[in-house]
Amino acid sequence: MELTERQARIVEIVKNSSPITGEQIAAQLDLTRATLRPDLTILTMAGVLEARPRVGYFYRDKHEPSPLLLRLRQLRVGDFKSMPAAIRANISIYDAIVTMFTQNVGSLIVVAEDHELLGMISRKDLLKAALGKTELQQVPVGVIMTRMPNIIMTTPDEPIIDASRKLVQHQIDTLPVVEAFIDEQGDERYEVVGRFTKTNVTKILVQIGTLGQ
Amino acid sequence: MELTERQARIVEIVKNSSPITGEQIAAQLDLTRATLRPDLTILTMAGVLEARPRVGYFYRDKHEPSPLLLRLRQLRVGDFKSMPAAIRANISIYDAIVTMFTQNVGSLIVVAEDHELLGMISRKDLLKAALGKTELQQVPVGVIMTRMPNIIMTTPDEPIIDASRKLVQHQIDTLPVVEAFIDEQGDERYEVVGRFTKTNVTKILVQIGTLGQ
Repeated sequence: MELTERQARIVEIVKNSSPITGEQIAAQLDLTRATLRPDLTILTMAGVLEARPRVGYFYRDKHEPSPLLLRLRQLRVGDFKSMPAAIRANISIYDAIVTMFTQNVGSLIVVAEDHELLGMISRKDLLKAALGKTELQQVPVGVIMTRMPNIIMTTPDEPIIDASRKLVQHQIDTLPVVEAFIDEQGDERYEVVGRFTKTNVTKILVQIGTLGQ
Repeated sequence: MELTERQARIVEIVKNSSPITGEQIAAQLDLTRATLRPDLTILTMAGVLEARPRVGYFYRDKHEPSPLLLRLRQLRVGDFKSMPAAIRANISIYDAIVTMFTQNVGSLIVVAEDHELLGMISRKDLLKAALGKTELQQVPVGVIMTRMPNIIMTTPDEPIIDASRKLVQHQIDTLPVVEAFIDEQGDERYEVVGRFTKTNVTKILVQIGTLGQ
């Protein structure tokens, strides 16, 4: 169970003195009720706390996650991924920038002829190159790309929650979606089958939140 | 109720012949079960369909959204926004690029001295300028920024679902969070109080999905 420090303190307070109102919790933490509101909402959504109107918050000892939460955890990257925005390592940095504009993506995936994952190029990488003294028309993107094994990846069967956590933790906007294969030398390699981005995550939240209205 | 075309067809099929299995729905639509899986999951999460194991899907005539969904819809931008990454309109494009790197953000908000919203600058805008013949050290960002009234904004009390939909529909990664005020001439202006991004949305989904585990 991953709680922020403040959420853990809220849970402790509720455990020790429930029922307790939001105002009372806020007072104990020396915070305003407004500051606590998102934490209380998320703890209640997750089933850790129970909110009874005009009574206060209770700690739910054996909290069962809501059915919706269980389904959310079952959603897989493969069902929500986008087509990969892929380029070859020998195209120029200039052409990579043009591709990024025309495809309107935040990152480009660099692949070999057989779609093997070779590298990743972010807008930041291109901006850095464009600012420097690099000859954009001459230098291939292979020179500035992030290479294996430094690429954070996901797979079609990874839960979207885990892939989303990777995006947040590594401060990137795109994960290449890959399937592993073993090459003739017996080494593991990765075939690119899509991309999973913060845009995909945002679309998922909009879809969940909008349906049934 | 916003359904994709395919989701609407699924609902029609289930309405007309429930209980019906996922395989049977897939057969009617000439699709594979795997293709339908995300739609069925989302329709069930939203309470539009009910899935009974070993029986099939039912249409829920008066579907009540799950309590978690109701809470999700109550989450407000003000509780999840980040600090604004703001710059002044007279700094050079070059300095804006450096600020984007050092603050590690996807967009910069251009403000006046009193935090009034003047414009937005995306990585794409800067990349375009860096590629062109623009004198990056001389030209102020005010020249290339997107100006009012073409800026898509949000407010602290807007539901995160609605703000997320703006991010998706307008294909942007950042919304300035603003509070409206009336200036001395009686015109409406906007004070920047934060930014709301696809990263905020991704963090929310991770928090919801992870809690209670």
